[in-house]
Amino acid sequence: MPDRGARLMKLGVLLYPTGYHIAAWRHPDTPADSGVNFARQCELARLAEEAKLDFIFLADSLATQRGDIEALKRTAIRYVCQFEPITLLSALAAVTGRIGLVGTASTTYHHPFHVARMFLSLDHISGGRAGWNVVTGSNPEEAASFGADPHPPAEERYRRAREFTGIVYRLWESWDEGAFVRDKASGLFFDPSKRHPLRHRGSHFAVAGPLPIARSPQGRPVVFQAGASDSGIALAAETAEVVFTAQANLDGALLFAERIRERARAARGAPDEPPLILPGVMPFIGRSRAEAQAKLDRLQELIDPVVGLSLLEGLMPGIDLSRLPLDGPLPEPAAGGWSRQGLLAKTARDENLTIRQLVYRVAAGRGHRLAIGTAASVADELEHWFRIGAADGFNLIPHSLPGALRDMAFELVPELRRRGLFRTDYEAATLRGHLGLPLAAPSSVSAAAAEDESSPG
Amino acid sequence: MPDRGARLMKLGVLLYPTGYHIAAWRHPDTPADSGVNFARQCELARLAEEAKLDFIFLADSLATQRGDIEALKRTAIRYVCQFEPITLLSALAAVTGRIGLVGTASTTYHHPFHVARMFLSLDHISGGRAGWNVVTGSNPEEAASFGADPHPPAEERYRRAREFTGIVYRLWESWDEGAFVRDKASGLFFDPSKRHPLRHRGSHFAVAGPLPIARSPQGRPVVFQAGASDSGIALAAETAEVVFTAQANLDGALLFAERIRERARAARGAPDEPPLILPGVMPFIGRSRAEAQAKLDRLQELIDPVVGLSLLEGLMPGIDLSRLPLDGPLPEPAAGGWSRQGLLAKTARDENLTIRQLVYRVAAGRGHRLAIGTAASVADELEHWFRIGAADGFNLIPHSLPGALRDMAFELVPELRRRGLFRTDYEAATLRGHLGLPLAAPSSVSAAAAEDESSPG
Repeated sequence: MPDRGARLMKLGVLLYPTGYHIAAWRHPDTPADSGVNFARQCELARLAEEAKLDFIFLADSLATQRGDIEALKRTAIRYVCQFEPITLLSALAAVTGRIGLVGTASTTYHHPFHVARMFLSLDHISGGRAGWNVVTGSNPEEAASFGADPHPPAEERYRRAREFTGIVYRLWESWDEGAFVRDKASGLFFDPSKRHPLRHRGSHFAVAGPLPIARSPQGRPVVFQAGASDSGIALAAETAEVVFTAQANLDGALLFAERIRERARAARGAPDEPPLILPGVMPFIGRSRAEAQAKLDRLQELIDPVVGLSLLEGLMPGIDLSRLPLDGPLPEPAAGGWSRQGLLAKTARDENLTIRQLVYRVAAGRGHRLAIGTAASVADELEHWFRIGAADGFNLIPHSLPGALRDMAFELVPELRRRGLFRTDYEAATLRGHLGLPLAAPSSVSAAAAEDESSPG
Repeated sequence: MPDRGARLMKLGVLLYPTGYHIAAWRHPDTPADSGVNFARQCELARLAEEAKLDFIFLADSLATQRGDIEALKRTAIRYVCQFEPITLLSALAAVTGRIGLVGTASTTYHHPFHVARMFLSLDHISGGRAGWNVVTGSNPEEAASFGADPHPPAEERYRRAREFTGIVYRLWESWDEGAFVRDKASGLFFDPSKRHPLRHRGSHFAVAGPLPIARSPQGRPVVFQAGASDSGIALAAETAEVVFTAQANLDGALLFAERIRERARAARGAPDEPPLILPGVMPFIGRSRAEAQAKLDRLQELIDPVVGLSLLEGLMPGIDLSRLPLDGPLPEPAAGGWSRQGLLAKTARDENLTIRQLVYRVAAGRGHRLAIGTAASVADELEHWFRIGAADGFNLIPHSLPGALRDMAFELVPELRRRGLFRTDYEAATLRGHLGLPLAAPSSVSAAAAEDESSPG
């Protein structure tokens, strides 16, 4: 387990439109229109900053997730109606001062020039608080939005993602620090020796730089990655600075963390730090365990069965669950599916869950850990994961908004602070600073990029 | 000349990083880092809103403009270092309340799904103040950023733009007003009868909808267009709601306006309004004509000759001006070049300018009209253009920032207001409202889209 200075937890928050729980929008305390209500998004961001969290994290999908219209019309969170992340984070940059702003953008249906440029522009707008969460797109409906049919298989997506990420890293190196001298007397605006035009020709992309924008105020936006398949882990080990992962239990989380660190050591060489590992966790906090459980139960009662089954089907593509008995076991998933599918099947097998029980399980956390109890007992659990090396911190997932975020800000985070596990105030101005991440890119990024350019196909 | 209700001028402002004049950044009163200084951009946006202008307009290019490094290193405004427009406008949406936010995005190197989604997201963030300026990209360097070689010729770019714009319009119709009922009791989030998934298969794109975001608060973001070539005029006549144009003199402006209106009538049919026509104009305002002229002269003195010549070359691709005598005439441009090139050649011919004189001319306005004088005399000129039908208003172009914007806000706009040519305060909440534009899309948009889908190639 690496010693990261004072060994403080890193804490982000994953903001879904109305909260992550599938039925959150129906809760009486949840405004149901938050997905396109900017005033509410501002309140949430300010609340997260009041709690001094390291970052806000926005997921994304480039199409509404697949599903029967009868289920879709009853759900708020399957990318039916919500802000696009880069525009929303740019707007939130103007109403916050310190919190990091991490957005998801797919390498399968974006272009590296646009992605590199927009995140660097967000980084300047926010004074060095931008992060890019690299995904390859697990929602096959995205293919239709972009005229690709079918959605490329995972291996192909990850090959593209590897090249894409390498290009973005290098576009962010277009200009050295201090390149823009802006000397009015001599008329020199920039120093040409500090300008580094890229000329990339690889298997998927030909891209020329430089980006038409100065170097990042934090050196470079922070790169997040969330893949849990073999290809995803390989990409994370090579290129990511922070890994976000869904881990339902401690054993799995520990194995995953060891695997990432081992693969990162192999890919990056000894002097490089492995990425920070931040599992998602969805706390239900009450003054007693019973009160916390009642919060979860209240949401579970609001689940429409049609929506719940459709959600589970969406997480297990290729299996038609509607033809199987709800109180029978889950069939084994086919090999080569999405990484979350394997984790879910394992959970069902390990805990002997019926399909109905699994519906209720995924409706809450969708593969992420639920932590149910008092602020102290939830803090105990997070502290244990942290101390034994299963996590460098957490991406906290509010089940419903703003309620669960308030519980985090006013109950859970203060408890972690009392234990000396989280800082009392921001100590840096940038996201890279909050996370204690080095300025140098992982050495494997440039190695991978060089390798790709030598073998255009 | 159509009667547009109270016949008030429409007024926007084109914000370049340090102002539009090529030497603005060297002026002692101009902060030279505005291109990536968000605090300064906030001040400018608030100043424009204080003047109650209809919109802020951001140009864009997806690469630094072509030029010798000796010239590039001495210029601030050729897309060397500045914010990306969509991220900047999103951030400015959070610090302004009424002013429209218009950003440029190229149809040649973007994808319609992303463009439609981001502008609609900006529209929700801003409460209905977004506008999209459609360009096909006049900077051939953009091709390299995206691995396209060569930059497609204008005709091909405009064919793609026509299909692209039609798709964007239709993606913005993905959801009817009131589609999201969000009924907690019944569990119904949206009404499926108000959802309109697009299935487009055309010559350049296959795109499926719906967009994962509700209908625009203003019905649909406002579509701007700025092409002045034959293909550009045809696209504007078919699809644009506002046309931004560079017109150096009144005769040309009048001819252009008549041409646009005639083509729009032919393309759209009788009941449709033609687009609003807003020429750019760069005012130099002083308490006397001499003081105004001195402002221009001061900036002209700051022009580095290397930069000036390179700028002119950039506007006249294919002509190597460095081999020609500076005090000799300009050669005739080749046919089929960029539209601005023809306008410049005409100006040089009509006014018998040498290359050196033309350098000084373009360094200030780059083809746009300069209006030099007192607030009253500049207002006289704008009023004349407006009353005889050469313009429905203007896109005001500050020569340097914030100085020229202050002159507009505190001298020119109040003078126009005294004459009853501009409103005293905002009377609407949305950009569409400010501009008095109809909610229905031009009828030619859907006709063009249908035609394209019937002939995929």
